[in-house]
Amino acid sequence: MKKTAFFISILFLTFNTIHSQKKNSKPNFIIIFTDDLGYGDLGTYGNPSILTPNLDKLASEGQKWTNFYVAANVCTPSRAALLTGRLPVRIGMESDTRRVLFPNSAGGLPESETTIAELLKSASYQTAAIGKWHLGHLEPHTPLNNGFDYYYGIPYSNDMDRDEKIPYLKLLDPDYKIESKDFNVPLIRNREIIERPADQTTITKRYTEESVAFIKKNKDKPFFLYLAHSMPHIPLFSSKDFVGKSKGGKYGDVIEELDWSVGQIIKTLKEQKLDENTYVIFTSDNGPWKIFKEQGGSSGTLYGAKGTSYEGGTRVPFIIWSPKNLKPKVETKIGSTLDLLPTLGSLAGIKLSENLKTDGYDLSPVLKGQTSNPRNEMFFYHGTKLFAARLGDYKLYYYKNDPSGYPEKLEKLEKLQLFNLAIDPSETNNIIDKKPDVAAQIQEVVSKHLATVVPVKNNLDDVVKK
Amino acid sequence: MKKTAFFISILFLTFNTIHSQKKNSKPNFIIIFTDDLGYGDLGTYGNPSILTPNLDKLASEGQKWTNFYVAANVCTPSRAALLTGRLPVRIGMESDTRRVLFPNSAGGLPESETTIAELLKSASYQTAAIGKWHLGHLEPHTPLNNGFDYYYGIPYSNDMDRDEKIPYLKLLDPDYKIESKDFNVPLIRNREIIERPADQTTITKRYTEESVAFIKKNKDKPFFLYLAHSMPHIPLFSSKDFVGKSKGGKYGDVIEELDWSVGQIIKTLKEQKLDENTYVIFTSDNGPWKIFKEQGGSSGTLYGAKGTSYEGGTRVPFIIWSPKNLKPKVETKIGSTLDLLPTLGSLAGIKLSENLKTDGYDLSPVLKGQTSNPRNEMFFYHGTKLFAARLGDYKLYYYKNDPSGYPEKLEKLEKLQLFNLAIDPSETNNIIDKKPDVAAQIQEVVSKHLATVVPVKNNLDDVVKK
Repeated sequence: MKKTAFFISILFLTFNTIHSQKKNSKPNFIIIFTDDLGYGDLGTYGNPSILTPNLDKLASEGQKWTNFYVAANVCTPSRAALLTGRLPVRIGMESDTRRVLFPNSAGGLPESETTIAELLKSASYQTAAIGKWHLGHLEPHTPLNNGFDYYYGIPYSNDMDRDEKIPYLKLLDPDYKIESKDFNVPLIRNREIIERPADQTTITKRYTEESVAFIKKNKDKPFFLYLAHSMPHIPLFSSKDFVGKSKGGKYGDVIEELDWSVGQIIKTLKEQKLDENTYVIFTSDNGPWKIFKEQGGSSGTLYGAKGTSYEGGTRVPFIIWSPKNLKPKVETKIGSTLDLLPTLGSLAGIKLSENLKTDGYDLSPVLKGQTSNPRNEMFFYHGTKLFAARLGDYKLYYYKNDPSGYPEKLEKLEKLQLFNLAIDPSETNNIIDKKPDVAAQIQEVVSKHLATVVPVKNNLDDVVKK
Repeated sequence: MKKTAFFISILFLTFNTIHSQKKNSKPNFIIIFTDDLGYGDLGTYGNPSILTPNLDKLASEGQKWTNFYVAANVCTPSRAALLTGRLPVRIGMESDTRRVLFPNSAGGLPESETTIAELLKSASYQTAAIGKWHLGHLEPHTPLNNGFDYYYGIPYSNDMDRDEKIPYLKLLDPDYKIESKDFNVPLIRNREIIERPADQTTITKRYTEESVAFIKKNKDKPFFLYLAHSMPHIPLFSSKDFVGKSKGGKYGDVIEELDWSVGQIIKTLKEQKLDENTYVIFTSDNGPWKIFKEQGGSSGTLYGAKGTSYEGGTRVPFIIWSPKNLKPKVETKIGSTLDLLPTLGSLAGIKLSENLKTDGYDLSPVLKGQTSNPRNEMFFYHGTKLFAARLGDYKLYYYKNDPSGYPEKLEKLEKLQLFNLAIDPSETNNIIDKKPDVAAQIQEVVSKHLATVVPVKNNLDDVVKK
């Protein structure tokens, strides 16, 4: 997207790197983005079976956010929101028919949008996307046309391109012996298919090795690594060292390998003396896929799952680590993947152009320990419908659906529902009758917001004509 | 209990205190035991609203157990089990009528039982019980007759001795302005009532001050402090500095004050240079009292509450910290408060008499990092009925009741239920039909166990004759 360069005016603000190893250099950024990992899947977020020592350490040395949201309850729109800072509904990345892209999809992320990679490239960052893309696998939607210098990964979900002889319902049976070759997904390097079907049993390991190589190669330049794991999306595979290792079954094995992967990244940063000037972020694209029961993750104390805009479908683990730059804390303020673009821009000293409209806030003051509260609201879309809205501690629901996410049917609530998420995070106690004033206040904020949402062309429904 | 001295033969084993500040001296023990605090109430166990930085730190520097159980789902029997290492049903501390002691109760912990305090006293420990007792407030059942040199606290639950003009149901209403003076509970020092009604708004603070004073006073002698907080049992009170402090409402305020209290204890140990030779344990007496909704705690991802023998009623946070003696880890092996007596005895180098029968295991090998697994089973009683049993990862249910714990009615299951707690900690997937062999194996273990349980006189039902 060449036009990016035109509407981002870059201003390098004075950047304080008192303790920086690379004096006066821009910080590196690594976003580790997992697929369908739930709020309750990590030790530090309360999982009783799965061991995640590397992530627990990252959380205790870094900042652990407990009210952090993705902007959609399924994959494609959630990824679009993270990379652009824009609500998917504004950029045609939410649809009421096909909610994610499929192998036969023709569309993807609109060329006109600016990604974090494009923003950072404009400030001379080296960039790589490793892992799942799922924002369009045909030009002009690929990583290399969206600000990334390098791409290695499976371009969409690992359960796609399925052998048609296997009924989808078979995947729900934990005893069914699924094989990696049953999914003819491609593994791509840059624009070239290098393996098909991709061997998923080593995919987490290979994404990790690629990431480690990218970090080493760029140790003297500022870099942005977007490591979007294919796991723990079903079908679940882990490499030999992790099969049967965890107490949490196949799913636990996969999470423990992801935790190992985080450990490798941190180890590499330390070896390369990059740990002092790198921000590492760990989060997930939506809640756990609970219809898969023991093959799906846990939303912990939260209600709902992937495919719902209840808390369990949209609130995710979020850890940000940069020991020399950020003091450890648990942060209960609201944050969102929508905020990453303005926040990373700010941390890199890039002044965003006024033409670059996002739905994100610069959270860097909160990270740096100021008492400010940039984000006080969150809008929860399901397709193009506003399902719910949060203002402060309160969340107001306009719709309901099955908390497992299946069947997907939405139902408009005859009477709105209101919950105080601070004292009732599990959403058990509807207080709409006790707090009509709060509900009215949220409705006002929602009206103002909806007035800004203009219908746009949908980019998810188009299929390739044969 | 004088007879204790006779049947405990004491042998001081070689005790390795390589890094010990007090060379060759016995370690100190502090057990912090909260009331109705749930599995999901601490940051490190996944709470998204309540901040517990001191406990989170204790967990990351110490050992955090994720499959740790109390031996009863309500207060009195759970406390009896912790202090004696015996299943309450063996010592008349579980009843099918009155499950806990009340102000008009005549009975309490049988004199014939050996408490941790008596065991440690026999090895010249200084001992104190500070906080809730609830094992009998009349002689011979008081702390001073059970191995404690000192007692300071409210002898039973803080919702007892209620002003009769206030219907109990009023307590369920979070907006009802309850006052400390509505509960005419006594505050006792040793055997003397020093305040009535006890001012509960400062009770956590005062328990903490008493604990700090006890530690300082005994800095040159081995000591055992049993700090059994009255909070977060309803009615909820916190001191001025904590009212309105937390994001988690009144309940959150109370938990954050308890966390502050832990911080004070650790600070004192460090100041007195006792941190290297002290074991600090933090746990709770049963699951959260969910019928109180926002005034009750959270069982996190676990099913059930106080008053049930589901996981949420019986699995509790358990942190053990002793930085110089124990390497940090998350431990998923099964443990129980039943194991504390033999474990502390072992850590103190006391050889238990063969006459001292307990239901506990010495967990010190696990604490010290050995791969051994002393406890592989857990029996869950509700009154005198065996409600469920766990063997390895599997839990078999014989009864069911309302997961909120109210109404208390038990119902015998027509068909037993089986869950794999490792991969299904929320107990959503009954696998009795898939694993009949596992169920049969547990039933065999249960039969053997039940053959050892001899009916005894019940100590909970007797009331004082007027």
